[in-house]
Amino acid sequence: MNTNDPVDCLERLRSLDRERMHLCRAAALLQWDQETYLPSGGVVERAEQLAVLEGLAHEKLISGEVGGLLDKLHDCASITGAGTRSDLQDGADGFPVKDFLRVFRRDYEKAVKLPVDFVRECARAEGLSQAAWIDARKHKDFAAFAPHLEKMIGLAQQKAAFWGWEKDRLYDGLLDCYEPALGVKEITAVFDPLQEKLQQLLQKIAVRPKPENVFLHHHFDEHKQETFFREVLAAIGLDGNRSRMDISAHPFTTTLGFDDVRITTRYDSSDPLSGLFSVIHESGHAFYELGIDGALRYSSLAEGSSMGIHESQSRLWENVIGRSRAFWKPWFPRFKEYFSAELGNTDFENFYRAVNIIFPGPIRVEADELSYSLHIILRFELEKKLIAGELSVNQLPVTWKTKMKDYLGVECADDAEGVLQDVHWSMGAFGYFPSYALGNLYALQFWDSLQGALGDVDELLERREYGKIHSWLRENIHRKGRCAEPSALIKDVTGRPLSAESFFHYIDKKYTELYGI
Amino acid sequence: MNTNDPVDCLERLRSLDRERMHLCRAAALLQWDQETYLPSGGVVERAEQLAVLEGLAHEKLISGEVGGLLDKLHDCASITGAGTRSDLQDGADGFPVKDFLRVFRRDYEKAVKLPVDFVRECARAEGLSQAAWIDARKHKDFAAFAPHLEKMIGLAQQKAAFWGWEKDRLYDGLLDCYEPALGVKEITAVFDPLQEKLQQLLQKIAVRPKPENVFLHHHFDEHKQETFFREVLAAIGLDGNRSRMDISAHPFTTTLGFDDVRITTRYDSSDPLSGLFSVIHESGHAFYELGIDGALRYSSLAEGSSMGIHESQSRLWENVIGRSRAFWKPWFPRFKEYFSAELGNTDFENFYRAVNIIFPGPIRVEADELSYSLHIILRFELEKKLIAGELSVNQLPVTWKTKMKDYLGVECADDAEGVLQDVHWSMGAFGYFPSYALGNLYALQFWDSLQGALGDVDELLERREYGKIHSWLRENIHRKGRCAEPSALIKDVTGRPLSAESFFHYIDKKYTELYGI
Repeated sequence: MNTNDPVDCLERLRSLDRERMHLCRAAALLQWDQETYLPSGGVVERAEQLAVLEGLAHEKLISGEVGGLLDKLHDCASITGAGTRSDLQDGADGFPVKDFLRVFRRDYEKAVKLPVDFVRECARAEGLSQAAWIDARKHKDFAAFAPHLEKMIGLAQQKAAFWGWEKDRLYDGLLDCYEPALGVKEITAVFDPLQEKLQQLLQKIAVRPKPENVFLHHHFDEHKQETFFREVLAAIGLDGNRSRMDISAHPFTTTLGFDDVRITTRYDSSDPLSGLFSVIHESGHAFYELGIDGALRYSSLAEGSSMGIHESQSRLWENVIGRSRAFWKPWFPRFKEYFSAELGNTDFENFYRAVNIIFPGPIRVEADELSYSLHIILRFELEKKLIAGELSVNQLPVTWKTKMKDYLGVECADDAEGVLQDVHWSMGAFGYFPSYALGNLYALQFWDSLQGALGDVDELLERREYGKIHSWLRENIHRKGRCAEPSALIKDVTGRPLSAESFFHYIDKKYTELYGI
Repeated sequence: MNTNDPVDCLERLRSLDRERMHLCRAAALLQWDQETYLPSGGVVERAEQLAVLEGLAHEKLISGEVGGLLDKLHDCASITGAGTRSDLQDGADGFPVKDFLRVFRRDYEKAVKLPVDFVRECARAEGLSQAAWIDARKHKDFAAFAPHLEKMIGLAQQKAAFWGWEKDRLYDGLLDCYEPALGVKEITAVFDPLQEKLQQLLQKIAVRPKPENVFLHHHFDEHKQETFFREVLAAIGLDGNRSRMDISAHPFTTTLGFDDVRITTRYDSSDPLSGLFSVIHESGHAFYELGIDGALRYSSLAEGSSMGIHESQSRLWENVIGRSRAFWKPWFPRFKEYFSAELGNTDFENFYRAVNIIFPGPIRVEADELSYSLHIILRFELEKKLIAGELSVNQLPVTWKTKMKDYLGVECADDAEGVLQDVHWSMGAFGYFPSYALGNLYALQFWDSLQGALGDVDELLERREYGKIHSWLRENIHRKGRCAEPSALIKDVTGRPLSAESFFHYIDKKYTELYGI
C-alpha cells in the first residue's frame, strides 16, 4: 500500500477494523457458549480464553499502525477541508467514511488509554466474577460474591480514571460508554420527574381492585411453551436463517456475526408469559442488529447507536406492542389453543388485564411497565454511590432492601431476589442500567412518530402484519447503525430531543383505562 | 524476565504456548458451533472469523520470540549436556520439560515454514469448502463441491511442499501430520495383508446365512433414543461436568478446554444403533482427552499422541467393548425396556448377532468391523493419487464407485453415499483416513495387554464396571498426552511394535464363532 494515499490508508484501516470485529464476534461466541452450553468444569479456562481474545482485539485497536492511519486520514481531511476531498467521500459501496472515521477515532481514543494488561485483567476478572455470581445467586450467598463485586467496582473506577475522568466524576465516565452525552446530571433531570410520576400512579393503582391472574400460574408444559414461543417468533419476523434461540439463566441477545444474531430465553412452568415476553424483548434487540445496513457489514459501525436506543427497540416490542390489546387480539385465541385446559374459561379482557397487571415485585426482569423504571432508578442511585466510594459492598444488600421498600413497597426475601438478581455488575457493566429506563422513553417517542407515519397501527397488529412496522423502524433507526448519534437520531426521527412526554402520555392513557383511575 | 536465565525463558515459552492453546481452543469452539448451532446465514462470516483466529494462533507459534527462546533453551541444554542441568529438569509441578521442548520445537519448525497468508487462506477456504460440502452432500451434487475439493487438494500439496517434501512424496508429508514415522511405504506394508485378510474373511462370510436384523429397523423414537444414549454415556463414565453431547451431521469429538471436551451424535429413527455406536466411539476419544495428566493442562502436550492412537481409543470402545457379548449382557435388557414394542420377542443371541452383522455397504461410518478398514484402504489409495496428481477431481466419483465394487462388492447409488459422504477432504485433512484403520490395529494390541493386566475383563463388562478399564487406559496411555510418541508408546505398553497380529486373532475368533466358518 501507498502510505501517502488516503484511499489506501482507509482501505487498510477498514481491514484492520474488520479483523478486530471478527475477534470481538469470536469472543462473543465464547460468552454466548458460557451462558448456554459450557460444561461447569470449563468455566475457569473459558475466562482465560476470553482474556486472550479480548486482549488481542484491544491490541489490534490500539496499535501504532491504527494511530498512524487515523492521524494521516485526519490530516488529509483537514488539509483539503473536511468532506471536500472526493477520495474520502462516502464510498461507492455506500460505506459512510466520515461516520466511520469519527466513530473509530472515538473507540481508538477510549481504548488507547487502557493498558493491555489492564484489559486482560478485566476480562479474566469478569469471567471469574460471572461464574461466582451464578453460584452465589443459586446459593443465595452474597458474601461469596462480595469480593468479586469489590474487584469489579475497583476495575470500573480504574477504567474511568484511565479515560481521564476526575475522581468525583468517575460514574459519568462509565455512563458515557452506554449513552454518550447523558451524564449523572442529565439523567437525574429525567429520572426525578419519572420517579415522581411512577410513584403517584402506583399509589393510585394500589387502592384499586387487582385483576385476576391465577389462571396464568397453573402448570404450563415447557415444551408446549417453546413451540408457542417459536411460532410467535417466526410470525413477528425473526429470520431463522440469521438467528437462533437458546436457553440461559438470564435472557440476552448477542451478535456473533452480521448474519448471526442470537437470543436466549428461559421457561418458567408456572409463568409462560415471563419467557414469552423475554423472547419478544430480545427479538426487539435482534431486529435492530439484523436491520443494520449491509454497507456497514463487518465494520465497527455495524452496531446500535447506544444502549438506550437499543433498549428502546426491545421495550417497544415487549411492552408497547407485546402488551397491547391489538397485539393479543389474534394471539390470545392461538395461545388458548395451546393451553385450553390451563386457561379454562378465561376471556380476552381477563387475559389482557392480567398481561398488564401492575404488581410491584422484587425482580426487575419480571416487573410491570410502571414498576420497571423504579427498579432502574434504584440501581442508578446505588451504582452511582458504589463507584463514588460512598457505599461499601458490605452495606449493599441492606441498602438495596431499604430502597426497594421505599420505592416499590416491596420486601426482598433474600439476596437472590435482591442484589444478586442481575448479571450486570458481575460483568463490570456499571452505568448500563439507566439505558433501560431511557429506552422506555425513547421507545414511546419513536412510537408516536411511527404512528404518525403509518396511521392505524392497531389495525396492522390485529391482522398480525408486522412488515410496515419493521420497515419504518429499519428505515428510520436500524439501518443507520452507529452512524447515528443517539441525541441526533431522536431529534431527526421525532423532531425533538429526548423527553418523557410521550411515555407519560402513554402510561396515563393505558393505565387510566385499565384501572379506572 | 532475564533472557539469559533458562528458567525465565522456559516460563515465557510456556506462557506463549498457553496463549496459543487458548486461541486454538477458541477456534475449536467456532468450528464446533458451525457444526451444531450456527444459523445458515452465518457460514461465510464464520469462515472469516476462523481465518483470523487461526492466523493469530499461527503467528504466535512462529514469532521471532518463540524461535529465539527455543534456540536459547536448546543451547542451555547442549552446553550442559541434555537433561543434566537441573534448571531444565522436569518441573516440581510435574511438567515434563524435555518432552515439551521436543514437541514444541517440532510444531514450531512445521509452522514456521508456512507463510501467515497461506495459513489464513487455508482457514478461509476450509470454511467455505465445508459449507459447500454440506450443501453438495444434501443435494447429491458433486459438481458443486468439485472446485472446492480442487482448491483443498492444491492447498494440501502446497503445504507439504512448504514443509520441504519432494514433489513425489507430498502425500508422505501429509501422513506425517497424523501418524509420525508412518509413511506410504510403512502403511502399505500393513494395509496390503490387511486387505487380503479382510477380503478373504468377507468372502467366507458372504456365503453363510445372514443374521436377522429387521427388528433394528423399525421406527425408534428419537427422544427415547437420546434418553437411552445419555444413560449409557453416564454409565460408561463420561463426566457431565467436563463434557457434553450435541447433534451434528457428522459425529465428532472436539476439545474446547482441558475440562471441556464435547462429542456429537445424530439420531436415525430407523437405526438406533447407528447413533449409539457413534456416542460410544466419540466417548472413547473424549476419555482420552479427559484422561490427560493435569500437569500438561493448557500446554501443547495436552493432546493425544497421534491420530492413530486416538482412534485406537474410540474403536476400542465402539467395537471391542461396545459390540462385545459381555457389554450387551446387562445393556440388552435395558435397551429392551426402552423399546419393548419395537424389539418384540428378539432374544439376546439374535440381538448380539444383529449388532455384529457383516453387511458391506457404501457408508464408512456405518460399516461393520470387517468392511471398515477396506473403506479406509480405498480412501488411502485415492487420496494418495489425488495428492500425487495421478487422479483428477473429475474422475474421482467414477473411480470411487469402481473401487467400492472391487473391494466391497458394493454399488453406490449416488455421490452422497459415495465420495461426498465424509467431511475430511472438505477440511483439507488428506492423510487422516489411514489413522482409522491403524487405530483398529493399535486398539487390539492395547486390548491384549489390558486383558493380560486385568484378567477377566468380560466379567467387569457384565457387571457394568468400567472403572478398572478406564484406570488402565489412563495410566498406560491417556495421562501421557503428547509426551509419548506413538511408536514408543505401543512398544512400551505392549512390549512390541505395531502389528496386525492381535487384530487378526480377534476377528478370526469372533467371526468364526459368529458365522460358523
